[in-house]
Amino acid sequence: MQKFQVNFLPDNKSILVEKDRTILSAAISAGVYINSVCGGDGVCGRCKVVLKEGKVSAQPNGIITAEERKNNIYLACLTNIHSDLVVEILESSRPELGEHLSSLYSRAEDIQPVNTKLKEGLFKHSPFATKIYLELPTPTLNDSVSDLERLYRALRNFEDFPVIQTGLFNIRQLGELLRDSEWKVTVTLGKRNDTVEIVLVESGDTTDRNFGLCFDIGTTTISGQLIDLNSKKILGTKATYNQQATFGNDVITRIVYAGQTDGLEKLHEAVCSTMNQIIRELTSDNNIDLNDLNCIVCSGNTTMIHLLLSVDPAHIRKEPYVPTANFLPVLRAAEAGININPRGLLSCVPGVSSYVGGDTTAGVLSSGIYQKDDLCILIDIGTNGEIVLGSKDFLVACAASAGPAFEGSGVTSGMRASSGAIQKVSINKADFNVKYSTIGDKKPRGICGSGYIDLLSSMLEAGIIDKGGKIKAEGKRIRQTDTGKEFVVCFKDETDNSSDIVINEADIENLKRSKAAIYSATAILAKHLGLQLSEISKIFIAGGFGTYLDIEKAIKIGLLPDLERSKFVFIGNSALAGAKQILLSNQAMLMANILASKITYFELSVDPGYMDEYSQALFFPHTDLKKFPTVSF
Amino acid sequence: MQKFQVNFLPDNKSILVEKDRTILSAAISAGVYINSVCGGDGVCGRCKVVLKEGKVSAQPNGIITAEERKNNIYLACLTNIHSDLVVEILESSRPELGEHLSSLYSRAEDIQPVNTKLKEGLFKHSPFATKIYLELPTPTLNDSVSDLERLYRALRNFEDFPVIQTGLFNIRQLGELLRDSEWKVTVTLGKRNDTVEIVLVESGDTTDRNFGLCFDIGTTTISGQLIDLNSKKILGTKATYNQQATFGNDVITRIVYAGQTDGLEKLHEAVCSTMNQIIRELTSDNNIDLNDLNCIVCSGNTTMIHLLLSVDPAHIRKEPYVPTANFLPVLRAAEAGININPRGLLSCVPGVSSYVGGDTTAGVLSSGIYQKDDLCILIDIGTNGEIVLGSKDFLVACAASAGPAFEGSGVTSGMRASSGAIQKVSINKADFNVKYSTIGDKKPRGICGSGYIDLLSSMLEAGIIDKGGKIKAEGKRIRQTDTGKEFVVCFKDETDNSSDIVINEADIENLKRSKAAIYSATAILAKHLGLQLSEISKIFIAGGFGTYLDIEKAIKIGLLPDLERSKFVFIGNSALAGAKQILLSNQAMLMANILASKITYFELSVDPGYMDEYSQALFFPHTDLKKFPTVSF
Repeated sequence: MQKFQVNFLPDNKSILVEKDRTILSAAISAGVYINSVCGGDGVCGRCKVVLKEGKVSAQPNGIITAEERKNNIYLACLTNIHSDLVVEILESSRPELGEHLSSLYSRAEDIQPVNTKLKEGLFKHSPFATKIYLELPTPTLNDSVSDLERLYRALRNFEDFPVIQTGLFNIRQLGELLRDSEWKVTVTLGKRNDTVEIVLVESGDTTDRNFGLCFDIGTTTISGQLIDLNSKKILGTKATYNQQATFGNDVITRIVYAGQTDGLEKLHEAVCSTMNQIIRELTSDNNIDLNDLNCIVCSGNTTMIHLLLSVDPAHIRKEPYVPTANFLPVLRAAEAGININPRGLLSCVPGVSSYVGGDTTAGVLSSGIYQKDDLCILIDIGTNGEIVLGSKDFLVACAASAGPAFEGSGVTSGMRASSGAIQKVSINKADFNVKYSTIGDKKPRGICGSGYIDLLSSMLEAGIIDKGGKIKAEGKRIRQTDTGKEFVVCFKDETDNSSDIVINEADIENLKRSKAAIYSATAILAKHLGLQLSEISKIFIAGGFGTYLDIEKAIKIGLLPDLERSKFVFIGNSALAGAKQILLSNQAMLMANILASKITYFELSVDPGYMDEYSQALFFPHTDLKKFPTVSF
Repeated sequence: MQKFQVNFLPDNKSILVEKDRTILSAAISAGVYINSVCGGDGVCGRCKVVLKEGKVSAQPNGIITAEERKNNIYLACLTNIHSDLVVEILESSRPELGEHLSSLYSRAEDIQPVNTKLKEGLFKHSPFATKIYLELPTPTLNDSVSDLERLYRALRNFEDFPVIQTGLFNIRQLGELLRDSEWKVTVTLGKRNDTVEIVLVESGDTTDRNFGLCFDIGTTTISGQLIDLNSKKILGTKATYNQQATFGNDVITRIVYAGQTDGLEKLHEAVCSTMNQIIRELTSDNNIDLNDLNCIVCSGNTTMIHLLLSVDPAHIRKEPYVPTANFLPVLRAAEAGININPRGLLSCVPGVSSYVGGDTTAGVLSSGIYQKDDLCILIDIGTNGEIVLGSKDFLVACAASAGPAFEGSGVTSGMRASSGAIQKVSINKADFNVKYSTIGDKKPRGICGSGYIDLLSSMLEAGIIDKGGKIKAEGKRIRQTDTGKEFVVCFKDETDNSSDIVINEADIENLKRSKAAIYSATAILAKHLGLQLSEISKIFIAGGFGTYLDIEKAIKIGLLPDLERSKFVFIGNSALAGAKQILLSNQAMLMANILASKITYFELSVDPGYMDEYSQALFFPHTDLKKFPTVSF
């Protein structure tokens, strides 16, 4: 078997491959990433390379112009190797490099729930993408079925797949690949709704390299995890602000922006860029090749998913609030602009309605409330807060526009729950001195959601603020500014960025509105179902709070209802956890489909008591103190 | 509902469409054809247009360069209409125009079998692409399922489709389209193996415009038919020489050529160009829009199908003769370079082996021999002749490399069975005067296959040639040339092209080899199965012979075995007829899959008696006259 060395510039990575392999396929084997939108079907023209040295033959395409041919420019996916080569990947064909996300989470533990009750192994391990190593019988005159049928036959011997689909890309390579690899190949299979697709065929046994990603695409924060699909191990977790935030803080402003000229394009690019940055960080930390990422599962609210796929979300905000799609087909990730293996697949967790999306479905899945005999409630605290009440018998969900304050956005010293964020606070009643701890025990850089909950609760207890949220005390930490009073949590000599960390009255107002939105939505949902909150046996609290959330203090400020403390379980990012379950098990994927159909949406704004309930919640903890019997300051 | 007028240049066709529709979708409605490879997914960049006047918004894409933006160049598939527009389709985005195929068949009858026994209505009418008109309920607060689910729900009310797939192209348009059309839409569904795909969603009721194509892609001749998928009516039939003939006369030379630099690309382009020319003629004759062609079914030998899909056929000619694929997935026709609706589907009839392709499967299907109680034989006379022997119990096929002589190629005055071709000949024994008739009763332009059979038989009867094929008579029609003798069939004053129509000794040798290949393959196949040819109850003769084939004379020259005349049935182009059945019925499609698996391939060359049998057949009618008891001259 003749082999040739292909050297890829500018990376200067080399690989030895069989004659007639395509340059794209060689690059994949060499761990060199080349852009693609069509997944190697020869139609998108994104994988252009310059042939510096060597002999190739180009397969049919109408994309390369005469001018480009003259300059030795070829499509990597349609050009076969006929000698040793030196190939330069055009800059436009390389993944765009952004700044290093120094502020991202770097340890998986950072965003894992500390007190999770999630059952491991609930669903059978059957990941979104599976690799199967096959040693095919060599054809003879008596066994001369075609190459593709030989492959299908072996796959069906392995498992009884009902419908197998394959694209031309794989078929075009198959003849040479099977012979060059001496009939020993690894097939990557991806689940595409009710069918199975041959995503990739590779030479030899590559089954040990099968990775996937799960994402929670939030309005404010995007979190991603890199998973080894064989061992189910989390290899890394990163989160960062959604770059879409430039175009508006909540889903409504984003939808409005999408309606402007090039608005949809800009929002789409922002979410892709954020996700690609996270992917780059995760793979580079773990020394994993982008081409070995075979699939990705995304949970997100309905608007985020529309924007990810460049689908106009306009009708989400117009009565009767109908999205274009809640159940989306499995796509090639490249179609959405996400840089994994050019043929890798992307699935979006199905949503319930315009304002209760796949993130909620994923949360219901991972919290397990759909299996409980007793009434449970899931409160997902995010920019779009979602509350689901139910059990194995029924599930009703509503959405509360809480704003991004608890994600550290729109508040003066706010930041995400990442390294250097103040997450625990206590205040000495006598001198107002502040004790705090930060994530990673770094010098403080700002305050994250759980820090704000502690801070508000401590300021109330110390008498620094009143129940309306006004700063009423005096002291060296309390300063008058043009826009009202502020309280200094950390003076700049202690901080990482040489500026004071403060909370002002506008911040408090902002946080108060957020907590009121979450609390009143929870209360109205129970009332709508004719239930007392006390009838609920378990309250699952989800959200991007890092590893820590003080339930006691969250009740004290009136964010959570005043119920027996043992009923509360903090489960961290339940949307990401659900997406991970779906990535790892087809059974979880099927369950998500069932749940998205089963959950009933309740539109808060149609309830006549909602505005009243909300207004009453605009106090710490609440106007009606009978609702918070255990809270006193 | 706001509407805008879009004027397309250079055709100067206009249409009134709803705001926010894409330019591509408007062009489809206006009957203006714009190229596409990706089917409107925004990845191939083939549908570029120049905005001359008006306001648009462009959806996300990374294809249009800054330079192009400056010049007002947009992708038609990703650009939404915001005002009245004047749009010019770039030349590179228009279908390439070739010369008018004046020599093509123009009447369907011309290539319909005269004596067909094909049962109509054997399979239920369920075409490859179906249109369904739906009036969807307008969403309300109580019925707020997403647009896509609303569509699926209505489709499933119509029929219980198990797996429905949809691409992003349709999802991205859906929101506006449903509302602009006031929830009255036509869905084009295509069958993709075991799933159903939403090919297109259109405004209003367009169910009366649903057309498809069937093709027989022969090594020498390509034939296509335009079918109204609603009425099953054949609207037109065209055939022309395969432009690949420039690169070699038979499949082996084509396979060798495909291995050369750019060889595969050139062969692929040649077959596409031929098919696109036929499609253009068919649609222009019938005043049908290319965009209303929703699907295409192709039968062809295994090498032709590989070349159509740019799959390297190299291993077909290497022992153990294994093709890359016999069963090919359903594709978008655009992926193969065929110009129909950019999202229209293409299916290839499954083949049996490297040398018995989907054309044979289609022939077995349309001849119905797979249903017969008694033994039948199907002899398809083409450049690659295929013979199938069997009944409802078993089917065995072999292939004979007959060469293109009976298709009018490689012989001095040969031509296809089209207008002006001599198809019937008789010769006066006394003065060797020739009486003939031509297809369409036009002035003669050449001789087609059935004409050659008549001619050879008449020359034998008149004693002009001997049993070895040498011209032995003298007369004014017999001339000596540098390369041997020739017989003038028509002097140039009678012909259409002012040149003599002749047959020379080299032509006769060529035709003799062709007939010997077919006859000996038939004989060896029967012998291999331990059968006498006389045990066969029905002989179906297929091939591109136009409307006429004189069985008696075909036996006289030894092309067909000397059996009872009533057993012979001439069925014309059985591969095309089978492709048409598959186009019109999913049941026929399923049956073709069963047949391709059921037919056993017999490799002639491994039979030790083959060369001997072939040599004996190199006489008119045969060396062993006992095999032709009824033939005497």
